[in-house]
Amino acid sequence: MAIGEIKELPKSWAMLGGDGPESYTLNSSYQKGVVDASIEMVDDGIMEKLDLKSLGLESTNDTFRIADFGCSVGPSTFFAVENIMKAVQHKHHAQFNNSPFSGFQVFFNDVTTNDFNTLFKALHSNEKYFSAGLPGTFFGRLLPRSTLHFAHSSYCLNWLSKVPKEVLDSVSPAWNKGSIQCDGLKKEVTKAYSAQFQSDMSTFLEARAQEIVGGGLMVIITGGLPDGVLMSQAGVGMYYDLLGSCLIDMAELGVISEEQLDSFNLPLYYSSSKEIEEIIKANGNFSIERMDSLSHNIWKTSRETKIKVSVTGGRAVFQGLLEDHFGREVAEKTFENFETKLDENFSIIDGAAHEHIDHFILLKRNVN
Amino acid sequence: MAIGEIKELPKSWAMLGGDGPESYTLNSSYQKGVVDASIEMVDDGIMEKLDLKSLGLESTNDTFRIADFGCSVGPSTFFAVENIMKAVQHKHHAQFNNSPFSGFQVFFNDVTTNDFNTLFKALHSNEKYFSAGLPGTFFGRLLPRSTLHFAHSSYCLNWLSKVPKEVLDSVSPAWNKGSIQCDGLKKEVTKAYSAQFQSDMSTFLEARAQEIVGGGLMVIITGGLPDGVLMSQAGVGMYYDLLGSCLIDMAELGVISEEQLDSFNLPLYYSSSKEIEEIIKANGNFSIERMDSLSHNIWKTSRETKIKVSVTGGRAVFQGLLEDHFGREVAEKTFENFETKLDENFSIIDGAAHEHIDHFILLKRNVN
Repeated sequence: MAIGEIKELPKSWAMLGGDGPESYTLNSSYQKGVVDASIEMVDDGIMEKLDLKSLGLESTNDTFRIADFGCSVGPSTFFAVENIMKAVQHKHHAQFNNSPFSGFQVFFNDVTTNDFNTLFKALHSNEKYFSAGLPGTFFGRLLPRSTLHFAHSSYCLNWLSKVPKEVLDSVSPAWNKGSIQCDGLKKEVTKAYSAQFQSDMSTFLEARAQEIVGGGLMVIITGGLPDGVLMSQAGVGMYYDLLGSCLIDMAELGVISEEQLDSFNLPLYYSSSKEIEEIIKANGNFSIERMDSLSHNIWKTSRETKIKVSVTGGRAVFQGLLEDHFGREVAEKTFENFETKLDENFSIIDGAAHEHIDHFILLKRNVN
Repeated sequence: MAIGEIKELPKSWAMLGGDGPESYTLNSSYQKGVVDASIEMVDDGIMEKLDLKSLGLESTNDTFRIADFGCSVGPSTFFAVENIMKAVQHKHHAQFNNSPFSGFQVFFNDVTTNDFNTLFKALHSNEKYFSAGLPGTFFGRLLPRSTLHFAHSSYCLNWLSKVPKEVLDSVSPAWNKGSIQCDGLKKEVTKAYSAQFQSDMSTFLEARAQEIVGGGLMVIITGGLPDGVLMSQAGVGMYYDLLGSCLIDMAELGVISEEQLDSFNLPLYYSSSKEIEEIIKANGNFSIERMDSLSHNIWKTSRETKIKVSVTGGRAVFQGLLEDHFGREVAEKTFENFETKLDENFSIIDGAAHEHIDHFILLKRNVN
């Protein structure tokens, strides 16, 4: 597969920038919860699977290089990389006793249209490491060969590089009329989404395989589904279906056309762990050191907060996509309607029904 | 000297961001002219003074790392680094005949408040190398030890990390009442500015010395004065004095207070080549491979264009500083007044009087 084939993702793939009331910065508590839930697994993985000696990182002259792929504007990314650094220092101490550790260089990656200005402003308020911004899609090479010791990517690989063409094509058997997502109810649609996911994930793994040194680690956290559960049966799938129903309302009211509605699908795919495992094995550059699922406390809160977080969190992530396709006004109205509907259908975001899972995957780059 | 002592520069130190009619992007033809004028000297320097073999850059696995310190938002920085890359490839070809060259990683540095979003947008329209943004003041460490092969800094080291306190202090013999710059007419003022320049330049050199590998090169381009010429005698000094006179007008009209006027000085210093040479020698980490002055064609244009460029160029650079100190409205009015005065005092920006020089300095990092 040709690396660097995907040159740039659409502008609307970026999270809402700035630090205003609707920003990703202030509305990413779910994503932060995911990072929190992974801390122990990251710690254990570094302690058990990272060999600093074989990486040549004993001496004080060597810098440990970390990259977070799909960092957005913070703050989750800072918690994630700071936790990795703590664990690596801990491991260094365990492996070499008291010899001093030289330090870290951290690369923060996201699409070019990500709000790096906001990221950098937050970053420099508390700097303990060399840092750099890495603009560009992670479905392509971003760093020189064999220069990375630890790669991290949290809640990004659910995003595809594009919506598969077939699902928007009215003459294709995979036409996804009536739904804005891969809900799992139509085989051809699932097949098209799954093929896109497989292609994107393989591209990602191939690019990272070239960047990560032999023996280096990669943590991937991504939303997924338990084996045998369809998207439309999981809370997160119902959540997207409900968002879709708000757009269907708009079409029925004549605010948007049927064509506008039919040509919109979310570039998201929630995979089973089996599916990811197969892609990683087919790629062949990494050994799977751990595959697990994360549980977190983000949903243990009041009804009101759950609804609020579900709406503002959704806005921070999807407003760009909706505005890009339907315009600002429709996006605004859709989210207003969405809040009302979430209140009426509270069970969707209530704990019990929320049956998707977050995959935690720890990979180790093979030594060639 | 403690590196990293200067944690962050004021927000207003950044050039005007975005790509609007007043942006640095569209109003930095002078800075671009300086880069153009330096191309041949950079080419010659790389061909004659860079030894890729001794840097260990023969094999295709090694990446040549470049950083531009004080890159702003483009486009000058892209011309500069692309020229360096071309020259390095040329040298590689000359040194190793046809063995393939592995590639480049370029770090674009500027203060944290620089508009990196605009920089990255322009950057990715034409990418031939790995690139990263490096936010933070260059008066401190930004990269791990011995990881840089070529450092470049154009038209930034005229900027001080701060205005020396004494020149704003009414009880100091170095009080610079009546002027907004180091015009060279008062010894104590010049001494204070010169000391600040010496301190900042030394900090810069010390930080870069740690980052650049032995045998690596650094090009510094900076505005300066011919030996024996005072700032108030050079075109650029008259230009700042004229800008200052617009602020004095504001004070006389009562738009700003005398205190506001007296507490404002530009954080700029134009040095003689002798002064820079002494600082480099005192630092001791670099050998001076070439010291020259640049001549360029930027002033060979119509009267109207000269005035336009002088006003818009000044705005793109100094608007942040003026707004920060006097507010937006005063800054606006000052530049309006400035345009009229430049027209009335055209000789200042006309070729003949424009007697400052741009220093070109090529340094080589000593091998320890």
